[in-house]
Amino acid sequence: MSDIKTVAKNAKNASIILSSLSCEIKNAALKNIADALKKNTNSVIEANEKDLTAAKVAVDEGKLSKSVFNRLKADENKINSMIDGIYDVMKLDDPVNKVEFTRELADGLILKKVTCPIGVIGVIFEARPDVLAQISALAIKSGNAVLLKGGKETVNTNSVIYKIIVDALDKTEGFPKNVINLLFSHEDVAQMLSEDKSIDLIIPRGSNKLVKYIQENTKIPVLGHASGICHIYADETADFDKALTVIEDSKCQYPAACNSVETVLVNKNIAEKFLPLFVSKMTEVGVIVNGDEEARNIVDGLGEVQEWAHEYGEKELSVKIVSSVEEAVDHINEFGSGHTDCIVSENTNSVNYFMARVDSAGVYHNASTRFADGYRYGFGAEVGISTNKTHARGPVGLEGLTIYKYQLEGHGDIVSDFCSGKRKFTHKNI
Amino acid sequence: MSDIKTVAKNAKNASIILSSLSCEIKNAALKNIADALKKNTNSVIEANEKDLTAAKVAVDEGKLSKSVFNRLKADENKINSMIDGIYDVMKLDDPVNKVEFTRELADGLILKKVTCPIGVIGVIFEARPDVLAQISALAIKSGNAVLLKGGKETVNTNSVIYKIIVDALDKTEGFPKNVINLLFSHEDVAQMLSEDKSIDLIIPRGSNKLVKYIQENTKIPVLGHASGICHIYADETADFDKALTVIEDSKCQYPAACNSVETVLVNKNIAEKFLPLFVSKMTEVGVIVNGDEEARNIVDGLGEVQEWAHEYGEKELSVKIVSSVEEAVDHINEFGSGHTDCIVSENTNSVNYFMARVDSAGVYHNASTRFADGYRYGFGAEVGISTNKTHARGPVGLEGLTIYKYQLEGHGDIVSDFCSGKRKFTHKNI
Repeated sequence: MSDIKTVAKNAKNASIILSSLSCEIKNAALKNIADALKKNTNSVIEANEKDLTAAKVAVDEGKLSKSVFNRLKADENKINSMIDGIYDVMKLDDPVNKVEFTRELADGLILKKVTCPIGVIGVIFEARPDVLAQISALAIKSGNAVLLKGGKETVNTNSVIYKIIVDALDKTEGFPKNVINLLFSHEDVAQMLSEDKSIDLIIPRGSNKLVKYIQENTKIPVLGHASGICHIYADETADFDKALTVIEDSKCQYPAACNSVETVLVNKNIAEKFLPLFVSKMTEVGVIVNGDEEARNIVDGLGEVQEWAHEYGEKELSVKIVSSVEEAVDHINEFGSGHTDCIVSENTNSVNYFMARVDSAGVYHNASTRFADGYRYGFGAEVGISTNKTHARGPVGLEGLTIYKYQLEGHGDIVSDFCSGKRKFTHKNI
Repeated sequence: MSDIKTVAKNAKNASIILSSLSCEIKNAALKNIADALKKNTNSVIEANEKDLTAAKVAVDEGKLSKSVFNRLKADENKINSMIDGIYDVMKLDDPVNKVEFTRELADGLILKKVTCPIGVIGVIFEARPDVLAQISALAIKSGNAVLLKGGKETVNTNSVIYKIIVDALDKTEGFPKNVINLLFSHEDVAQMLSEDKSIDLIIPRGSNKLVKYIQENTKIPVLGHASGICHIYADETADFDKALTVIEDSKCQYPAACNSVETVLVNKNIAEKFLPLFVSKMTEVGVIVNGDEEARNIVDGLGEVQEWAHEYGEKELSVKIVSSVEEAVDHINEFGSGHTDCIVSENTNSVNYFMARVDSAGVYHNASTRFADGYRYGFGAEVGISTNKTHARGPVGLEGLTIYKYQLEGHGDIVSDFCSGKRKFTHKNI
């Protein structure tokens, strides 16, 4: 497994076969994985216990945070949800071989635009025992081969789950080898990032630091987000109840999530009334509020904001007084991360301005930023959330793992006949 | 104009305003440009004459090829086609603000997926006087700001056309400043490639060398193709007439084009009969044929192939004998550039195998590779041809200059209500 160039090359070859498999074979492979995980639940739990023991030592030595430790556990419940997740992916429509259009270019010359897998995808994720099975399922369903590298804290759990998956795929008739590949070291990842001949897309799932490292060290397109600096703007016409409820949910429902709110912008015309209510509510639910000078002049005891482009990732946020929706939008476009931003307002003009001009993957009106999620959007599965401006933006479902090719069917047709005027293009969608 | 960071930042600000302009204003801007080009045809011709004089000297000194020189001229006919091209872009549907879906996530909580411009695009093109107007028109219609750098051989022509465009945009009511920006030096380009905070996409249009330089020197996504190594495979069941006609058109119709054929693969079972006919036809139309050992054993006097992944770009090609459609597909996936590849065959199984397994933007059956073109595909305009596996593949129309955002409309909706079971997702497309 040490020669990543070979692993990537073999994955590329596998991806070609995989790209033309029927949905039946792909679903049979998924079913075999789900069954094998069920049958081998105990061996996953045993491997996970080894990881937990090692992680406990690391926590005691101060080398691992408690919050990471809490995510490592793979008990029967977690394994059952992994299995449920695989069944969910089975139920999704096959995202490949969809004909996006069929067009007669000229008499007897037919062009089809057909979806197909991207090819080979490299996925780097941190310590979570459930990601390996989930990403493998998504890759299989979308017809992509993958190179996977998980966090070192779950190395035993991942090795066992990986073996279960590979054995299940080996038993699936017609399913090629080398579709799912596990990497083990940082050196493997570094080499993977340089295999731009074989690997078509990299998806990093983890900390800002991990994503930034990946973005800065590869020529392969990277799908994801380095940071999630989400804003809520309370407009002059904001309904205070909605604003307070939406902000509380956006911050507190899961403070560590990328779609939780980090900065609240408040229109100056409501600041005197709204801010004391807001700070009191935040204090009540244990959220620390830092403010700009104007905000600190209105409410005593706020911390000072050090940097606007800051992702707290915990129960803490920044507040700034702005003079208008225009200033709010400018602030968001300057300091935001293009993830998800919300306006709380009862004024249609302000809302339209905000929705059109905020340059983010998600622009919300009177709704919690926590809705930015593939499952909540109804995609059935989520590959990740992208703040890219090309390919896929926002929560990415299976579709984001596909591209398309053009198939042209002719009968010896040549371009010269069209240049000479002998034949004419009809360009008729059929 | 020397501080490209400022130019890029201003373009980004302009792109935000541009993204919400109505189609009427964008079309008015295009009409003003077309009118101004018509009115100032003489000044364009005068500037172009300066470029031609300088280029003539360069040709005489052997510093510029005749084929580049031939492309430099902007006479009245060429300017009229530029103007026609702008009218064509006016006629295209607005690619932004298209609602891709509207979905009720839950009662009263409505998600829309809406197309929008990418933002700021950097375009680098070589010496052609018509590209500046064409790209400007495409950028305006798709709502993207652009930084443009043309070949130095057309610097006078480009400067005059640029001034005409900017003046026309200044006269267009409601149209923001800084949408179209012209760069002048290699240093400007180098700095542009590092402005990944402001620039969202780079489109290089030119030689393999130019595209490779760009790909290797930026973190910004690059849309395009470095090379066009297109194949035609003559299957065992190929109709000889179709094969000969399609290969001739694919090579001779415009040998310098990226979609012209470079390698012909011939099934071994027809090689003895087909190859002599093929070589005789190629000789007749002035195409040099180089072959592998088997081909050279069948027909005398063929050159030796030096390298399979080679783009001749002129009337010369490689021929290789293969034992099956499988070998043909493997060869194409190994040595091709993922651009456009064709099978000539009367056997459905071979055709299906080829169309499914060749991993290229275009997979053709019995049709010239020269059809790979945005106009011929009926896109109305072409931004370029992409061999990328993400975002846009094959000939790219206006659509390739757009992405989408998610707009969520609520009434104070929070995620906690769904986690607690108080509310349920409906996920109903409406």
